[in-house]
Amino acid sequence: MTHHTSTQTSTETSSATGTDVTVIGLGLMGRALADAVLTAGHRVTVWNRTAAKAEGLVSRGARLADSVESAVLASPVSIVCVSDYASLQQAFASVSGDLDGRVLVNLTSGDPEQARELARWADQAGAHTLDGAIMAVPSTIGTADAIILLSGSGTAFETHQPLLAALGDATFLGDDHGLAALYDVAGLSVMWGVLNAWLQGVALLSTAGVDASAFTPFAAQVAQETVGWLPGYADQVDRGSFTPDDATIATHAGGIAHLVRVSEELGVDAELPRLFGSVAARAIAAGHADRSYPALIEQLAPGSRAS
Amino acid sequence: MTHHTSTQTSTETSSATGTDVTVIGLGLMGRALADAVLTAGHRVTVWNRTAAKAEGLVSRGARLADSVESAVLASPVSIVCVSDYASLQQAFASVSGDLDGRVLVNLTSGDPEQARELARWADQAGAHTLDGAIMAVPSTIGTADAIILLSGSGTAFETHQPLLAALGDATFLGDDHGLAALYDVAGLSVMWGVLNAWLQGVALLSTAGVDASAFTPFAAQVAQETVGWLPGYADQVDRGSFTPDDATIATHAGGIAHLVRVSEELGVDAELPRLFGSVAARAIAAGHADRSYPALIEQLAPGSRAS
Repeated sequence: MTHHTSTQTSTETSSATGTDVTVIGLGLMGRALADAVLTAGHRVTVWNRTAAKAEGLVSRGARLADSVESAVLASPVSIVCVSDYASLQQAFASVSGDLDGRVLVNLTSGDPEQARELARWADQAGAHTLDGAIMAVPSTIGTADAIILLSGSGTAFETHQPLLAALGDATFLGDDHGLAALYDVAGLSVMWGVLNAWLQGVALLSTAGVDASAFTPFAAQVAQETVGWLPGYADQVDRGSFTPDDATIATHAGGIAHLVRVSEELGVDAELPRLFGSVAARAIAAGHADRSYPALIEQLAPGSRAS
Repeated sequence: MTHHTSTQTSTETSSATGTDVTVIGLGLMGRALADAVLTAGHRVTVWNRTAAKAEGLVSRGARLADSVESAVLASPVSIVCVSDYASLQQAFASVSGDLDGRVLVNLTSGDPEQARELARWADQAGAHTLDGAIMAVPSTIGTADAIILLSGSGTAFETHQPLLAALGDATFLGDDHGLAALYDVAGLSVMWGVLNAWLQGVALLSTAGVDASAFTPFAAQVAQETVGWLPGYADQVDRGSFTPDDATIATHAGGIAHLVRVSEELGVDAELPRLFGSVAARAIAAGHADRSYPALIEQLAPGSRAS
């Protein structure tokens, strides 16, 4: 992969030497990413719509490019992290040239379909794309606590693995560019599920004067135990075989009705319990009362809805 | 505590010697409990509406009582595990005498208020009560995997701790008899929250042909990370102070809207994402957009609803 000369406005260097990596977008997250690659010893080119945000990075040795195109051409790989796909399109609208085998690692949040669309555009411009989702706050970037999911070009992932590892715990999911965005949103669903269900428990216990801090170790224990069942349940979903070795959906529905009743009696919002009940009721209406709990997937996923 | 003589129909003994523990109710769970105390070397009296279910236990040395009252009087402590409170009332309707300081450990599932009512009745009959919830399947009874939550008489818990430890991981929650039932239902809420949110993620990933088993290690990682935030969030709830050190409710609401949109676009049921959104929207309408996520408790708990 050839290092191309870029047009640079950095006061420190105007040499023809290329850089290892370009970072486009210097918001909180973008600056954290640029910091991490500088810390890892890489030569870095940066670009931001508002150039002033690059000052700290330039003082640490980064070069500031004067256009997105020159920034991308400065390095074999560019990390793109702007606020949304609209900003991304705006930033790349001026890119007219051949990106000549460059790799774009797009960490801008978006839908799976937006990621796939970007990959098609980049392909036409001669670039390879990795689309990624950052499951972390900026302060953890550069540590193993920053989970970075990537999908798209497997070759690009392999080639730039050391660089990506400098950003966090980078995992490659597969060659569908939409996968990272899909895992991201699915992971957030799990996060909100845990948080809202914990809040339901906190609300219930509050009616007996129990502090959230007193309830939480027990809630954590239950959550962890439940997480321990997921691999077995996943296997049931993948096999499409829902023979219960614990409780049936009918048994769960009885327990859920109990949760609804106790919540209502205590004046606690019962919307979440009622939702658990309505999904179970749909499964029972579909004749799945005697199946195990993960058979509820057939009420949620589009493909299995008809079965 | 005096061991009283009981009227026993056991063919093996009609001696005046009392037993260590009585087990009332010999369904799947009751038999598992009786088995565990027999295995631990205790002298055991049992009673069941249908006496035939006691056969296996009697062959292992348990004594079969001919009435609930004689069963309770046979031991200083009785474990009661029948199908519901209606069955419990029916079983104890014939108990007319003074229970003379006996301890009832009620492991029958019910509402917090039913537990408190039983405690009042038992108190009038001269008995002390521990109300409990078993967070386990019968096959794990007698092991540390069986979580048994107990509340009510702290003295009774202390006195009978070795016996209770023979049943599982027995934890005392406090002197409000309703606490165990409340923790039970709150814990189940956490369980269903994890399961349903995981299913949401499985459904989303299924649209890209990703197996549940491929998604699940990531889901488990996210769930565990989220669980790790709960102690800090609990502290915010207890202090009533919701200064965000991560994301605001407004930021979460943006992410939830993204989850709703992606779910809908992919034909995945969006009921759970929409519920996350509606709780967040209520908090934002209440002026809490800039607070941290656990400020949602004010939308759920009765006491804080007005704030």
